[in-house]
Amino acid sequence: MKPAAILFDVFGTLLDVYSVQTRAEQRFPGQGLRIAQLWRDKQLEYTRLRSLSSRYESFSRVTRDALQFTADALRLDARADALDELMRLYDALPAFPEVGDVLARLAAQDIPLGVLSNGEGPLLERCLAAAGLRGRFAHVLSADAVRVFKTAAPVYQLGPDAVGRAARDILFVSSNGWDACCATWFGYTTCWINRSGAPLERLGVEPHRTGTDLGAVLAAID
Amino acid sequence: MKPAAILFDVFGTLLDVYSVQTRAEQRFPGQGLRIAQLWRDKQLEYTRLRSLSSRYESFSRVTRDALQFTADALRLDARADALDELMRLYDALPAFPEVGDVLARLAAQDIPLGVLSNGEGPLLERCLAAAGLRGRFAHVLSADAVRVFKTAAPVYQLGPDAVGRAARDILFVSSNGWDACCATWFGYTTCWINRSGAPLERLGVEPHRTGTDLGAVLAAID
Repeated sequence: MKPAAILFDVFGTLLDVYSVQTRAEQRFPGQGLRIAQLWRDKQLEYTRLRSLSSRYESFSRVTRDALQFTADALRLDARADALDELMRLYDALPAFPEVGDVLARLAAQDIPLGVLSNGEGPLLERCLAAAGLRGRFAHVLSADAVRVFKTAAPVYQLGPDAVGRAARDILFVSSNGWDACCATWFGYTTCWINRSGAPLERLGVEPHRTGTDLGAVLAAID
Repeated sequence: MKPAAILFDVFGTLLDVYSVQTRAEQRFPGQGLRIAQLWRDKQLEYTRLRSLSSRYESFSRVTRDALQFTADALRLDARADALDELMRLYDALPAFPEVGDVLARLAAQDIPLGVLSNGEGPLLERCLAAAGLRGRFAHVLSADAVRVFKTAAPVYQLGPDAVGRAARDILFVSSNGWDACCATWFGYTTCWINRSGAPLERLGVEPHRTGTDLGAVLAAID
């Protein structure tokens, strides 16, 4: 398949969300892994609860709320400045090692690239610029435009609307199994980057392709 | 406040979901707690993903899928009959110790009682009958009637529709912090039964009352 465009999820797919674990471990010794995991889980939970309850707030706001809950739940001795420091990590998450090379190869094939993320536009611009990736993307699509988070249909619909082609003609790439599955439901051709060796979500739907890093996208378009 | 009716969440609020931990521990020694926690987390996650993606399936189906994922993720040596045995526990979850007495006291005050749950009707009927509670409830309200799960508004709207009064005149009781918060957003007067000493969810909304067991409902209506 040569897709009309390729859309990438950002957090966890291009940028390493769990890299916050290292800094959290420095700030709160022995708790880094639990902080990173609970923060991420709660962040996703809040995006879903707010979406289901029609109470949208920006991804950055939700992320800060999730961090505060994490500090509460783990009884961290956390002053606001320590949490603010962890929050700022989101502005400069590192890209996974292979990302730059894979995007360069895709660009050489004249396939339009984009991102489709829960993050609000200004956050995406900062993140992608900090990781040196901004110039690769013709489309920077944010859930903020429709004020609801994944996996609601209006978010996924941003892709076909921006590209001007049906979802099935677009390759959607995510490292989040739930995102890859729900995008498949929506109608995209999908590639799940299963970086962590996670089992397939039991949702009764499977991504079209699966790989262990972003290199799988190169195989998917051959 | 003397409410026009009191509606209870079921799983975790009246019936002890984590009691499956004991049986899981017997079947899979050393893994009982992780199985119970991941099963519950994944069950909730799937209700939300299916709701957001408009791919409703019954709570029992979602619960079975979540259990299968749990077995996959924890690499349990689990034949189908072992999982089926854990699933059958859902038909006979024990009520928390104080539940029978509190419901009897409320019934004596002529306040109509009901349940409002993600569980489908037949599951609720089996559960409540097995726990000896069915006769206490005038209303058995299920998300299945609207084919979407909490915290979507159509589920909470089942309450006012059944009772014939505004949500603010109805006391909604849940041990799940997210349920109590989102029901407050919806408009109910709410009581959060914080059985586990969990921190408040950081959603920018607070339940009207909080207690540590169902006895808090008696205090709330005085």
